[in-house]
Amino acid sequence: MVTAEPSRPRGRRPAGEDARGAIVTAARSEFAARGYDGTTLRGIARAAGVDPRLVHHYFDGKEDVFVAALELPVSPAELVSRVLDGPPGELGERLARFFLGTWDPPQGREVLVGLLRAAVSSPDAAHLLREFVTQNVFARIASVVDLPDAQLRADLMAAQLVGAAVLRYVVRVEPLASAPVETLVALLGPTLQRYLTAPDSGGTTGR
Amino acid sequence: MVTAEPSRPRGRRPAGEDARGAIVTAARSEFAARGYDGTTLRGIARAAGVDPRLVHHYFDGKEDVFVAALELPVSPAELVSRVLDGPPGELGERLARFFLGTWDPPQGREVLVGLLRAAVSSPDAAHLLREFVTQNVFARIASVVDLPDAQLRADLMAAQLVGAAVLRYVVRVEPLASAPVETLVALLGPTLQRYLTAPDSGGTTGR
Repeated sequence: MVTAEPSRPRGRRPAGEDARGAIVTAARSEFAARGYDGTTLRGIARAAGVDPRLVHHYFDGKEDVFVAALELPVSPAELVSRVLDGPPGELGERLARFFLGTWDPPQGREVLVGLLRAAVSSPDAAHLLREFVTQNVFARIASVVDLPDAQLRADLMAAQLVGAAVLRYVVRVEPLASAPVETLVALLGPTLQRYLTAPDSGGTTGR
Repeated sequence: MVTAEPSRPRGRRPAGEDARGAIVTAARSEFAARGYDGTTLRGIARAAGVDPRLVHHYFDGKEDVFVAALELPVSPAELVSRVLDGPPGELGERLARFFLGTWDPPQGREVLVGLLRAAVSSPDAAHLLREFVTQNVFARIASVVDLPDAQLRADLMAAQLVGAAVLRYVVRVEPLASAPVETLVALLGPTLQRYLTAPDSGGTTGR
């Protein structure tokens, strides 16, 4: 049970921070134990020993708690919104720039490498990430792809970015590891754009 | 020291297999301890307690020992040769088909997931894989890219395939995890081909 401590001097660390911290800690355990779909805000409140209304006070919803639990530098939903907002012909470029802009700084890089490690080494973490990313990122990107295989195209766009992250941040293959962000944006942007807009396989072999 | 056991019945398990096995086991330790560049065939022979000529008897060279040590289903050099041999306009498609053809069967998938886990969780394994893949795969693919940033383009092609493997085999994102190989080849082929042949960034924004 998280309560304010009246004897503590004001301004040192507000009681609200303790409650929020307890919610985030409980959320981490709940997500790990139950997966993204199986976790509820009510269950998180119970595990944190707080009133469910307090969870709603600090967080906009389950995704918001999850983002806090993972210490993501930016909400995926917010990132997707910002990427989708702009000229459709430059969507691939914006996606590449936002992705690298978010994960390239040291703090983002650390979080992303942690997520990749967890996803690759733990089936539970992979399951959690899969549910979360499918609902909050892939499905929303696929919604703007007006082509057959929209969801699969969104998956392959994600694959290009995930693979670039693995080789750039984890395996550190050169010259990819040291390439400037804008050089990568110029190469990745059209790749992503092709998945969004190329009406067929784009090949010349007619397969 | 590995020697034949004269008392053992013939045909049960030839002594040569023991020597080869000892070399592969020693190679695994040497590669793990010294990295790909730092490992020598002479050092592997010493660690295995065999004559260096025996290593040359069983293996064509360092890459061949490495492939055996990693239990790869196919030699990367052989795979690259087979991919490079054919019409240049279909190179991307061949690369996608060979990659998925190698790693999609259960045995290949198991090896690849093991490699990905090792690369993501161990800096030593990442280092080893980086040196090996850079020399034996990326550099050879980059050699057929007659464009600026050839090596970076090869890295991003690898990133597309590595990311697809992570999401298909490890995180198991749908529909990517269940998509037929040929559906993926039709989407991945042109992506890889674009890195090989698109003279500029390929975008319409002129960046």
